[in-house]
Amino acid sequence: MSSEAPQPDLERRPDGEGPTSDEVKLSETEALYGVSPEAVARARRAVGEGDLAQIEKLVDELHPADFADLLQALTPDERRFVIKVCRHILEPETLNYLDEVVRDEVIGLMSPGEVAQAVSELETDDAVDILEDLDEAEKQRVLRAIPAADRAVIEQGLTYPEDSAGRLMQRDLVAVPQHWTVGEAIDYLRANQDLPDDFYDLFVVDPMHKPIGAVPLSRAMRNKRIVKLEDLMHTEFRVVPATMDQESVAYLFRQYGLMSAPVVDDAGRLLGVITVDDVVHVIEEEAEEDLLGIVGVSETDFHAPALETAWRRVRWLVVTLCNSAIASTVISQFEATIEQIVALAILMPIVAAMGGNAGVQVITVMVRALATRDLQPRGSNVWRVVGKEIAVAAINAAVFALVMGTVTSFFFGLPIGLVLGAAMVFNMIWAGIAGTLIPLTLARFGIDPAIGAGPFLTTTTDVFGFFSFLGLATLFLL
Amino acid sequence: MSSEAPQPDLERRPDGEGPTSDEVKLSETEALYGVSPEAVARARRAVGEGDLAQIEKLVDELHPADFADLLQALTPDERRFVIKVCRHILEPETLNYLDEVVRDEVIGLMSPGEVAQAVSELETDDAVDILEDLDEAEKQRVLRAIPAADRAVIEQGLTYPEDSAGRLMQRDLVAVPQHWTVGEAIDYLRANQDLPDDFYDLFVVDPMHKPIGAVPLSRAMRNKRIVKLEDLMHTEFRVVPATMDQESVAYLFRQYGLMSAPVVDDAGRLLGVITVDDVVHVIEEEAEEDLLGIVGVSETDFHAPALETAWRRVRWLVVTLCNSAIASTVISQFEATIEQIVALAILMPIVAAMGGNAGVQVITVMVRALATRDLQPRGSNVWRVVGKEIAVAAINAAVFALVMGTVTSFFFGLPIGLVLGAAMVFNMIWAGIAGTLIPLTLARFGIDPAIGAGPFLTTTTDVFGFFSFLGLATLFLL
Repeated sequence: MSSEAPQPDLERRPDGEGPTSDEVKLSETEALYGVSPEAVARARRAVGEGDLAQIEKLVDELHPADFADLLQALTPDERRFVIKVCRHILEPETLNYLDEVVRDEVIGLMSPGEVAQAVSELETDDAVDILEDLDEAEKQRVLRAIPAADRAVIEQGLTYPEDSAGRLMQRDLVAVPQHWTVGEAIDYLRANQDLPDDFYDLFVVDPMHKPIGAVPLSRAMRNKRIVKLEDLMHTEFRVVPATMDQESVAYLFRQYGLMSAPVVDDAGRLLGVITVDDVVHVIEEEAEEDLLGIVGVSETDFHAPALETAWRRVRWLVVTLCNSAIASTVISQFEATIEQIVALAILMPIVAAMGGNAGVQVITVMVRALATRDLQPRGSNVWRVVGKEIAVAAINAAVFALVMGTVTSFFFGLPIGLVLGAAMVFNMIWAGIAGTLIPLTLARFGIDPAIGAGPFLTTTTDVFGFFSFLGLATLFLL
Repeated sequence: MSSEAPQPDLERRPDGEGPTSDEVKLSETEALYGVSPEAVARARRAVGEGDLAQIEKLVDELHPADFADLLQALTPDERRFVIKVCRHILEPETLNYLDEVVRDEVIGLMSPGEVAQAVSELETDDAVDILEDLDEAEKQRVLRAIPAADRAVIEQGLTYPEDSAGRLMQRDLVAVPQHWTVGEAIDYLRANQDLPDDFYDLFVVDPMHKPIGAVPLSRAMRNKRIVKLEDLMHTEFRVVPATMDQESVAYLFRQYGLMSAPVVDDAGRLLGVITVDDVVHVIEEEAEEDLLGIVGVSETDFHAPALETAWRRVRWLVVTLCNSAIASTVISQFEATIEQIVALAILMPIVAAMGGNAGVQVITVMVRALATRDLQPRGSNVWRVVGKEIAVAAINAAVFALVMGTVTSFFFGLPIGLVLGAAMVFNMIWAGIAGTLIPLTLARFGIDPAIGAGPFLTTTTDVFGFFSFLGLATLFLL
C-alpha cells in the first residue's frame, strides 16, 4: 500500500530509461507536481485524433486545479472540443481554478442548467465567486436553475460588497452552544451528516448566536468527553465583520497566523467562516497589485485575447505618453542651449534615469511598508522614515555624482562634468523627497498609494532632472 | 460573557465622546486590528517617563505580532529601553514577527541564555528561522545553552538548505499506524501530552514510517470509534521532499489549496509537517521578489539603517547607470544629426519611454505567468503566447504612433512626425519581442527571469529607440 504515496520519482529515474534528455532537464527545473507538458501534449494529441476516451481519462486522473491549467494551455478551439466532450464529468471546482477570461469561455459552452448543477455542488464562497462574474441576464438564468435552498444562500452572498469578507466566507460551519461538552460535540458531529467536508474549529456561540470562542479540533480531540468546550476555547479569537475589505482580512490572517476566522453581521451574530486557503489568493493578489501599480502595469492579463489585452494596456501607455510629453516640453525650453552644446542631449538621459531608479526604489519600500502596515500615514515614526530615505538618497547621490562627474569631465571637459554631477545630486535627493512624500500624501487622503505612484514619480524625476541639468548648463556654461 | 468577543467598536463609537476627529479619521482608514498609533504613542510616553509598569502592561496586552510591530515603530533608543525592561516577559514568538534587522538588534540585547530559553519554547521551524540568521559564533553560544533534546532537533533543521522545505517544516506531528481505528487515535491523543499544540491532520504511516495517507481531524471526529483510519484517509495527499525549494512548496499549497503537507526524507520517511500559515509568508515573498526584480529594486529594506540601505541600493543604481551610459553612447553617435535638428533631442525621450513601458508590461505578464506556471518555458503554447504579445505590441504601436506622429507633425513638420511614428512602431514591436524572449530564454537556461529582466529590457528599448529614431532621422531628414 505504501506504493500509493506519490513519490518524487524524477530524482530516482535512471538516466538511461527516462524520456529524452531535453525533457529530463525540463522536469528538473519544474515542480514535481502540477500538470506536465507531457500531459498537455497528450491532451492535444487526443483532441487532434478525436480520442474521447483519452480525454475522459485525463479529466479523471487530474486534480481539478491541474485540469484547469491543462485547459488554459490549450488553444480556444481545442478547449471548446474538450469542454463539449467532458462538461458532464467536469469537477465543479475546476471552474474556480480557471482564470476569469477562460472561465467565461467555458461557462459560455455550458447550458444554464449545467452551470447551476456545478455551482450548487460548490461551497458558498466558490459559488458566489463564479456567479459574481457572470453578466446579469446569465446570472439570473443560472440562479433560477439552482434549488431554492442553495439559491437563497448564494443570493445572500452576492449582496455583500465585492472584495468583502462576506464574499470570501463559507456559510457551512460548525457552531455549538457554550454549555456543551466535548462528548456532546463529538456525538453531534457523528450524527449530523449535513456538515461541511473539512473544518478546523468549533465555534462556540451564545444564545444570540454571537461567537464567544473557538475550539480548535485538535484541542477538542485531546480532551475527555466530560470537559466543557467553554474551558477549552480561545476567547482571544478575531472576528471579521462581513463588510470588512478583503485586504484587511488578509492583513488579519497574516498578522496573527490564523487558520480560520468567524464572520459576523452588524449585530455581531455568526454568519460564516473564512479559512486561510481562501485568503492565500487575496494575499498574493494584494502584493501583486501594489507592485504592478508602481511599475505602471495593469493586472497580468495572460489569458485575455490580443485585442482585449491591447486595450487594457492603453491606459498606462497614455500615462507614459503624457509623462514623456511633459518631459519633452521641459527640454524644448532649452532648445537654444542644446543647439550650442550637443553633449547635453547625450548626457541628459543619465540624470533622468538615475533619479527615476532612485525614486522607484524609495516608493516601492514606502508602498509596501504602508500595505503591510509597518508604516502608518499618521504614525509617530513618519518623519524619521522620511528623514532616513532622504539621507539614503543624499549618500548615493554624492557617490554616483562624484563617479559620473569625473567620468564626464574626462570625455566632455570639467564644466560639463560639474554641471552633470550637481544635477544628479539635486535629482536624486528630489527622488528621495518625492518618493516618500507622494505615497504618504496619497495614503493620508485615503487614496491607494500603489496605483500610479510610480509613473507619477518618474514624471517628476524626469522633469526635475532635465530642468536642473539643462538649467544649470544654461546658467553656467553659455 | 459575550462581551469578551472583540467587537469592531469603532463603527459604533458615538462621535461626541471618542478621541479627536483627527484620530477618528485615522482609525477609519486603518484596520480594526493591529497595533494602533495610540498604543505606539502610549509606549513612547512610557519610555520617556520611565514608566516600567505601563510598558509591562503593553507586553501583556498585545499579541506578539502586534508587540513586534510596536517595537519596530520605536526609535532604536526607545527599543533598547523597552527590551531591557521586558526581555524576561517577552513572548518568544515576538522574535519571529520582527523584521530581520530589528531582530538582530533585539537579540543583541539579550544574553545567549535568554535567547536559548526563548528559542527552545518555539516550534522547530520558528527556532531554526531565528538561529539561521545569527552569526556563527553567536549561534554556537545559543545552541550550547539549549537543552540537548531540543538542540538536536534544531541542529538537524539547520542542516537543510536555506529556503528549503526542511527549514519550513515543524518536527512535531501526529503519526499513527495504518491499522488503528478512530477510537485508538482518540485515546492516544488524550493520553499523550507530548503532542503539538495545534494540528489539522493525522498522518497514517506504514511500518517503515512512510506516510501513506492523511486523515483530516474533522473526518476523524465525525466517524465512530470503530472506523478504521485507513478507510478515512486521503491517499491522494501530496508529500514534500525535505530538499524541495520553498517556491515549489508555495506552488503546491496554492495549486491544491492545502492546509498541511507531510515532509519526507530521501527514503520517503516522514520527517515533519508544513502548515499553510508557514507558507503564506513564502507566497507573499515570492510575488514580491518577482515584481521587485522587474522594477530593479532590492528587497524592501524598511528597517535597515540609512547607510546599510544606501549600500543595498547601489547595485541597481549601478545597473541603471550602465544602462543609461550605453544609451548615451548610442546618442553620441548621432551628435552631428542632433546638432542640425535640435527637435530630435526634444522628442527622443518619448520613443524610449513608450518602448520601455510597453516592454515592462509584457515582461511583467511573462514573469508572473512563468512563476505561477501558467507558462512553461518549453510548453507547447509558448509560440502562441509570444505571437499574441507581439500582436498586442503591434496594435498599440500603430495607434500611438499615429496619434503622436500627427501631433508632432503639427509642431515640428511632417517629416519629423513621420520619422517619430516609424521609430515608435519599430521600438514598441521590439519591446513585444524582447519582453517575451528575454524571460523565456532566461527560464530555459534555468535562470530566474524575475531578477533584472526589467532593467535589461529597458536598456534594449532605450538603445533600440534612440538608434531607430536618430538613425531614421539621419537617413531621411539630413
